[in-house]
Amino acid sequence: MTERVVLAYSGGLDTSVCIGWIAEETGAEVIAVAVDVGQGGEDLEIIRKRALACGAVEAEVADARDEFANEYCLPAIQSNALYMDRYPLVSALSRPTIVKHLVAAARKHGATTVAHGCTGKGNDQVRFEAGISSLAPDLKCIAPVRDYAMTRDKAIAFCEEKNLPIATTKKSPYSIDQNVFGRAVETGFLEDIWNAPIEDVYEYTQNPAEPREADEVVITFAAGVPVAIDGRTVTVLQAIEELNRRAGAQGVGRLDMVEDRLVGIKSREIYEAPGAIALITAHQELENVTVERELARFKKTVDQRWGELVYDGMWFSPLKRALDGFIQDANQHVCGDIRMTLHGGRAVVTGRKSDTSLYDFNLATYDSGDTFDQSLSKGFIELFGMSSKIAARRDQRAGTGLPA
Amino acid sequence: MTERVVLAYSGGLDTSVCIGWIAEETGAEVIAVAVDVGQGGEDLEIIRKRALACGAVEAEVADARDEFANEYCLPAIQSNALYMDRYPLVSALSRPTIVKHLVAAARKHGATTVAHGCTGKGNDQVRFEAGISSLAPDLKCIAPVRDYAMTRDKAIAFCEEKNLPIATTKKSPYSIDQNVFGRAVETGFLEDIWNAPIEDVYEYTQNPAEPREADEVVITFAAGVPVAIDGRTVTVLQAIEELNRRAGAQGVGRLDMVEDRLVGIKSREIYEAPGAIALITAHQELENVTVERELARFKKTVDQRWGELVYDGMWFSPLKRALDGFIQDANQHVCGDIRMTLHGGRAVVTGRKSDTSLYDFNLATYDSGDTFDQSLSKGFIELFGMSSKIAARRDQRAGTGLPA
Amino acid sequence: MTERVVLAYSGGLDTSVCIGWIAEETGAEVIAVAVDVGQGGEDLEIIRKRALACGAVEAEVADARDEFANEYCLPAIQSNALYMDRYPLVSALSRPTIVKHLVAAARKHGATTVAHGCTGKGNDQVRFEAGISSLAPDLKCIAPVRDYAMTRDKAIAFCEEKNLPIATTKKSPYSIDQNVFGRAVETGFLEDIWNAPIEDVYEYTQNPAEPREADEVVITFAAGVPVAIDGRTVTVLQAIEELNRRAGAQGVGRLDMVEDRLVGIKSREIYEAPGAIALITAHQELENVTVERELARFKKTVDQRWGELVYDGMWFSPLKRALDGFIQDANQHVCGDIRMTLHGGRAVVTGRKSDTSLYDFNLATYDSGDTFDQSLSKGFIELFGMSSKIAARRDQRAGTGLPA
Amino acid sequence: MTERVVLAYSGGLDTSVCIGWIAEETGAEVIAVAVDVGQGGEDLEIIRKRALACGAVEAEVADARDEFANEYCLPAIQSNALYMDRYPLVSALSRPTIVKHLVAAARKHGATTVAHGCTGKGNDQVRFEAGISSLAPDLKCIAPVRDYAMTRDKAIAFCEEKNLPIATTKKSPYSIDQNVFGRAVETGFLEDIWNAPIEDVYEYTQNPAEPREADEVVITFAAGVPVAIDGRTVTVLQAIEELNRRAGAQGVGRLDMVEDRLVGIKSREIYEAPGAIALITAHQELENVTVERELARFKKTVDQRWGELVYDGMWFSPLKRALDGFIQDANQHVCGDIRMTLHGGRAVVTGRKSDTSLYDFNLATYDSGDTFDQSLSKGFIELFGMSSKIAARRDQRAGTGLPA
Repeated sequence: MTERVVLAYSGGLDTSVCIGWIAEETGAEVIAVAVDVGQGGEDLEIIRKRALACGAVEAEVADARDEFANEYCLPAIQSNALYMDRYPLVSALSRPTIVKHLVAAARKHGATTVAHGCTGKGNDQVRFEAGISSLAPDLKCIAPVRDYAMTRDKAIAFCEEKNLPIATTKKSPYSIDQNVFGRAVETGFLEDIWNAPIEDVYEYTQNPAEPREADEVVITFAAGVPVAIDGRTVTVLQAIEELNRRAGAQGVGRLDMVEDRLVGIKSREIYEAPGAIALITAHQELENVTVERELARFKKTVDQRWGELVYDGMWFSPLKRALDGFIQDANQHVCGDIRMTLHGGRAVVTGRKSDTSLYDFNLATYDSGDTFDQSLSKGFIELFGMSSKIAARRDQRAGTGLPA
Repeated sequence: MTERVVLAYSGGLDTSVCIGWIAEETGAEVIAVAVDVGQGGEDLEIIRKRALACGAVEAEVADARDEFANEYCLPAIQSNALYMDRYPLVSALSRPTIVKHLVAAARKHGATTVAHGCTGKGNDQVRFEAGISSLAPDLKCIAPVRDYAMTRDKAIAFCEEKNLPIATTKKSPYSIDQNVFGRAVETGFLEDIWNAPIEDVYEYTQNPAEPREADEVVITFAAGVPVAIDGRTVTVLQAIEELNRRAGAQGVGRLDMVEDRLVGIKSREIYEAPGAIALITAHQELENVTVERELARFKKTVDQRWGELVYDGMWFSPLKRALDGFIQDANQHVCGDIRMTLHGGRAVVTGRKSDTSLYDFNLATYDSGDTFDQSLSKGFIELFGMSSKIAARRDQRAGTGLPA
Repeated sequence: MTERVVLAYSGGLDTSVCIGWIAEETGAEVIAVAVDVGQGGEDLEIIRKRALACGAVEAEVADARDEFANEYCLPAIQSNALYMDRYPLVSALSRPTIVKHLVAAARKHGATTVAHGCTGKGNDQVRFEAGISSLAPDLKCIAPVRDYAMTRDKAIAFCEEKNLPIATTKKSPYSIDQNVFGRAVETGFLEDIWNAPIEDVYEYTQNPAEPREADEVVITFAAGVPVAIDGRTVTVLQAIEELNRRAGAQGVGRLDMVEDRLVGIKSREIYEAPGAIALITAHQELENVTVERELARFKKTVDQRWGELVYDGMWFSPLKRALDGFIQDANQHVCGDIRMTLHGGRAVVTGRKSDTSLYDFNLATYDSGDTFDQSLSKGFIELFGMSSKIAARRDQRAGTGLPA
Repeated sequence: MTERVVLAYSGGLDTSVCIGWIAEETGAEVIAVAVDVGQGGEDLEIIRKRALACGAVEAEVADARDEFANEYCLPAIQSNALYMDRYPLVSALSRPTIVKHLVAAARKHGATTVAHGCTGKGNDQVRFEAGISSLAPDLKCIAPVRDYAMTRDKAIAFCEEKNLPIATTKKSPYSIDQNVFGRAVETGFLEDIWNAPIEDVYEYTQNPAEPREADEVVITFAAGVPVAIDGRTVTVLQAIEELNRRAGAQGVGRLDMVEDRLVGIKSREIYEAPGAIALITAHQELENVTVERELARFKKTVDQRWGELVYDGMWFSPLKRALDGFIQDANQHVCGDIRMTLHGGRAVVTGRKSDTSLYDFNLATYDSGDTFDQSLSKGFIELFGMSSKIAARRDQRAGTGLPA
């Protein structure tokens, strides 16, 4: 029986050429799989037909937008996932979603290999291949661009030679990956890290510097899940989409950073993620109100490791799954309303309301009604500082103390 | 010999009353110590004379602004210290500065006790007392407001009875602590956490929503120390002051959060810290460019613990000092220029330049000149994901694997 | 209605006197609650009658040995809980067990206060009071020894005056707390930390230096739970008891350490925990065989924090409960047999067998049959070390590199 | 000019063959470098001559035993470095020592490449190559066994063909790496992880089960450095050697474990490290006496990461160097005597004496002279448990509380 290869298919030039290229290189039949994670662009049916026209023996398309929002973006919100305190993991979240569909298609069609269109110096190759090996350790992976040196010039030549139904227009100056959770842009002139980005780079966000009316929004969470906006019930997908629109219109969520890739190099990245940033900002403040201090402090360690693992392509790893349980547990009381002002590139929390709040007005107030017993503090401070005080005595004795 | 008490003196009503109050309660002589950490307000000499007029046997004043900037604010910048990812530790940094002066005065004047004007439900009492016990474990601490139930009404009565030279005007609706690194505001109506702050609350920052011209600034760091602004050499204090002015004028650095106090309660706090936020934002991005990935990842854990310790009043503790060494080491290559746009409440990095950069254009570029050997990636991915892949095989065997 | 106080009752002199003492100090009715966590000693019914004879209005006794083993000792085994890498949390585990029974009794009998017999300088007072406040925040706590200065001499006088049916023989030179998970001993001559313990101190363990035959045992775990010993099915309680006997007979599990108490001081402690140490040693090695590397590395951080929290009395805290979920998840594949030799004070693993093993003979072997593809390593090493290599290049350039 | 390759030379069959093999494969001149890290065996001069006889153009030998002890083993003692809580990093410490000499020789002789004799599935290849790339990023690395498929059979054939002056006797059944800090053994029958090791495997340690007299030793540390044994001043090397003898004679330091290799697989390892285990055990307990609690708790996180980095070959990485500073600082007060009994495979601390002790008899004692103020505890406990108590109240309200 002929070997079968499942290809992660986007409908663009590179992966369209991959269909025939893989067939020639390996003698295998190619099954194209396109997954909609909210990247916009062409209709899935058009993409499906193009795959077949380019030589795929089968072509599958899937609208995975709700799945992506519920199973991938939501845990990122619940763990306030910002890689290097900035990047909301946009592409890192979409890759495992796609991987799951690729593996399902491989099982359905009896394929032994999965192919993707990534280069050999980015993070996405790791996310695809480590994802596949953790979900289906028996499947092989190939990356024609990396493994068969399929450059863009060769791709265009192949395309023209085979008369494939794809436009081979000159490449955009920008290398872009986008989905409903955000948009990543790399480009030649931004590889000089002293250069500032220009407005032309952005699509999901308006210029924050332009004057406009502020937008006030109330986001309701239940157990860390955004469930309503301004009182209207929403799905997670709808919450992201609505906040992409509204926060995007106010210029919220632009990011410009130098980041550490898993392959060991630093790269410069521009991101736009208005909905993601608005939701994480709101979620974080609702945690401040509803999560107990020691749980919150330790959760930062968990959140950081979760973000690193997901960035590093380890979505399906045992550690990532164990951290998920912790994060779920910590979110169980993250319930209530956050009121935010979206304006001038900023998403600013101005109010919180929660039935599961740990903020106790009577303990916090300096007005009458204060129920905090201040006489407890002296003993607390004395014993809280005791081990440091004993060390200070020793240091004085040993002559290694701090000079006063 | 009569006992002597050193009092942390601000010049205001409460601590002025404390002078006589402590004398009456303890029979001790009171030495007033006022420390300028950039809080503004009255002249130190006026404050010194008032202390004497209120009955202090000695009064010492110190301009500690440079000391505060160099020894307390700078390490906070170098550790990107933001408690709960937000608060740049404004008051938490000034307390140990003051503690050091109090202890020095106690030594000089042979005092056995240190007094401060804090209440019994905040963090500052811990910062004073744990600080003193770690620096001078033999000194005792008293807090008249907490320990002798010195309420404001009683203070006013005492003031009038003794005819002290202080205005006993009605208290401001705001409870404020400020210094050159920022300003903290608490107030009655903000104790309802659903209420938004009003413009009246702010002093260090202009309204970010008002239209104005953007301000572009270049901050130069050497080993994590801000040493120049727009090419002009500055001290740390000058850097903070200039950025307070310029970032403050753009509305940068307003914070509104519910935070976890050390005494176990949650409180609502409003902060303004334009210079601090601008400097930390710039420093953080320069770290992204110059600090190796694994060092950067671990430094987040160190930074978080450093911030918690300082917030919790443990400035002079053994762990805090050991973390300082790590942070110094990690900053040794944080050298170069950061260009930022200050505008509309945002401090946005737009360029970085560094002789100690780890960003390698030739490794990062997708253009010609790329020196990254993509053939290395396959082996890397395979072994990087190996332990997770072996676990996936086991899980399939055990029937506990992930469904595909 | 008369107030009611629930007292943690041991049957000994101190808590027997507490019954009447509390009644006199507070005017309340006292309900005595005795909980069997495997401490041995008198029959529960005798203890119950003594409480009533000493003036308790009600007396409840509970055999909580299985509950203690299943709900408190087992999680400690699953998290390899060794405070300061040594102490298996013997007393720290029994306190929350007792707290749960005290709170249940308080609810049943309408009590508003819980009392315990601890002093004011140990950890157990925190474990009782923080446990109660986290389980029943409305209940008050009192500790007569600490709060009413009930010294031993006063207790004996009270006892004789009231003619209570308790022997007031001279106190043992040792202060002891014991249960099925281990035994803790403090004593006057051991407060000199240069003094070695003597044989007289020990009860659960034989002298390891005496010659005897080794004992070989096979312990079977399922999902981290010890379920069989030498092929015979056991409950967790039976596993601990059998290993207390067998490992104790070989002198396993003696500990002598200086430890950090929560109240800020260091103390010297002698422990015996033969079953606990044998079970944790076996569990740890079975984890080595069955838990994926990154999960195992992070679990050390979780295990450490879990142990600190439990030592610090935070059993019922939100963070402890969230960590429990992580630990459960990490234990799901900890299944199989561990063979150990118990001899001369040592519990040494000599064999492991597991259906859920991640040890792969074919990948590990250096003999024929090796399936490890060594050609992958070069790329792995190159990219794994890339960020450090780039930093080294920078350091050479900057003249801050390592001298070779 | 002819290229030059520096080879890590042991004097054994494999690396002797490498000399000619590398010359044939690459056309380069080979410089052999042998480093004595206390592995015992042949005289360095004999090894040097053999290298030349096998075709090396230069041969350098270095007695690096003191360097190894002072610069590599000592930091491991000071960080209580036990990978997976067991393995004292024996081989992981020797590799960077050797790397430093290889790089120095490469610089001296103008070599562009470094070669080592490791296979492609172990940790040591990473330690060599990542070490070299972090110390001398311009040097290339080759591993003939891995890169040129130099199997043992081919090596023997090469040896006989070229008539090299090396015995080609049948390989020992054991694969061994040893140095003064310990000894590692792998072997065919131990690859079945159910098989127990046999006495034949061990060389550094006597059978702990055999009856013999106990040995009592007093180890003196200054700032975490072992400086005297039983009152006699020693170097670090002498301390390790003497304790290898004395602890080894008592069977101390045998380890049998399944461990996680960096390349993603689990392997079974037998180690002997009597001196290392005795020194780390003593050091750890002296830390318990002299290091403040919060510093000690955080140091566990640092120690763990340090051990992982060193195990993973990252000795010369930026993070490892930054952690070194922390560990140095934490050791500054680790001064004093530890008395241990070495017997029956156990190294048991029985006494501690320290001028920099934080153990305070007067605070710890339950006898008269107690200076601990127990009245402080109530306030401490109340505020220490406050955040958990407030959460418990919320949980009761929300109906998600713990059942009592």
